[in-house]
Formats: sequence, C-alpha cells, structure tokens
Amino acid sequence: MSQSDDEAAVLSANAAFYAAFESLSTEAMDAVWADEEPVLCVHPGWPLLSGREPVMESWRRIFENASLMHFDITGAEVVVEGDAAWVSCTENLTQVLDGRVVEGKIQATNLFRRCLGEWRVAHHHGSPVGQ
Amino acid sequence: MSQSDDEAAVLSANAAFYAAFESLSTEAMDAVWADEEPVLCVHPGWPLLSGREPVMESWRRIFENASLMHFDITGAEVVVEGDAAWVSCTENLTQVLDGRVVEGKIQATNLFRRCLGEWRVAHHHGSPVGQ
Repeated sequence: MSQSDDEAAVLSANAAFYAAFESLSTEAMDAVWADEEPVLCVHPGWPLLSGREPVMESWRRIFENASLMHFDITGAEVVVEGDAAWVSCTENLTQVLDGRVVEGKIQATNLFRRCLGEWRVAHHHGSPVGQ
Repeated sequence: MSQSDDEAAVLSANAAFYAAFESLSTEAMDAVWADEEPVLCVHPGWPLLSGREPVMESWRRIFENASLMHFDITGAEVVVEGDAAWVSCTENLTQVLDGRVVEGKIQATNLFRRCLGEWRVAHHHGSPVGQ
C-alpha cells in the first residue's frame, strides 16, 4: 500500500474509534483496540492507564455515566511510520450530562499499531483545550 | 539492536528532551527534535501546533517567560515499533513563575522517529493531571 493508502486506512481506524466512543458500547470499543499489550490511555485529567484491562475498565466507567456523546472531529493530522501511526485531532464533543447538554473541546493524540494488517488503537491521550 | 537496547535508547532520547527543556535553550530544544516534518506539539491547554517552525516558536515563547524549570520524570512507559517509539510519563514540574515556586503535574506522551539511527522527538503532547 502507498503512504496515502496507509494514511486513509489510519484515518478510517480513527473514525472507527470515535464511532465506538459514540456507541457507548464496551464491546465496540474493545474491537478497535489492539488485542496485545502494550496498551496505554490518558483520559482528560486522568493519570496514565497502562494495560488492556484497566483501559477497558475505564471505558466501562465512562459509558456507565454517559447518556449521549457526539464527536465532530476537526483538524486531523496523520503520520504513518511503518507499522505505527498517530493522529492528532480536535474532538468537538457534545454530550448530555445529568440531563444538560454540555459542549467541550478536547485535543487528542491517538496512536495505532498495525496488527495482522489492521490498524488498532494502542494509545489514546485526550486533554482539554483552552485552559 | 535488541528491543531492550532500543527501549533504552528511546528513554535516553526522552531524558535528553527534558534536559533541553530545563536548559531553557531554544538551540538545545532544536537539536532533540526531528529535522524533517511531520512535527507536532500540544502544550498543556494549547491547541495543536503543526510544523517545525510553529513548534520551535512555541519553545521560544515558553523559554522567554520561564526563569527556572525542573522536571522529575516518573512512571515512564516506553513502546518501540520499528522506527517509531513513544514514551508516556508524568512530568513532576517545579518552576519559578513571577518569583514564586510553583509545582505541577503534567501527563506527557512523547513520540519519537528514528532519523539516521538517532531517536528524535516528532510529537509532544502534555496535559495537566488531576482536574
């Protein structure tokens, strides 16, 4: 595959990550992450989570407390380096929290590893913008 | 080189990045970053900076406003994937701002690319912990 095919495949994996996020389904999120370690995750304001099990447990907790999340992804920059790739993008998030609509902006770095030909999330780092 | 040699070399590049940060020298910072694009950077609370020139300009601005910065790096996790690598770590930062000592904790994801055998910073994403 050419570099631009790889970049398109990584952007598609990035879109699949946000589709899983919006689905609020732990099973859907489980399917887009790398099956094998190392797996890392930093949610906005959280310390680093290391390991597939703590990361999946964090999604379970986030989804239990969410009723609706919608992501509009802007400004995505993609880099492919062999079997690793990363996307830096802005998550324009609309969510319903305690019955109220809340909007927020999060800057994310999403790292992918190519696993058996498929790009899977290996690290997600999200942090608030504009503080 | 074995995987553990690579990991040691990446951790050494990560330490060199923080030594450059503490030196408050734009020249030192310039030397640890990849010479070639793509280069990305997210400082805590800032939007994404894309491109070597805006990233170096941001270090110039940060260093102009800093008089002392000391980093104690903890909990570093390193991943090497071919010619790409990433380190997730906690920056325990002590700095002097307007004559006052201020302590803070920042979670960082530092991405490296192997350029002519040398690991160089290709992306830094720092964000506040514990909000």
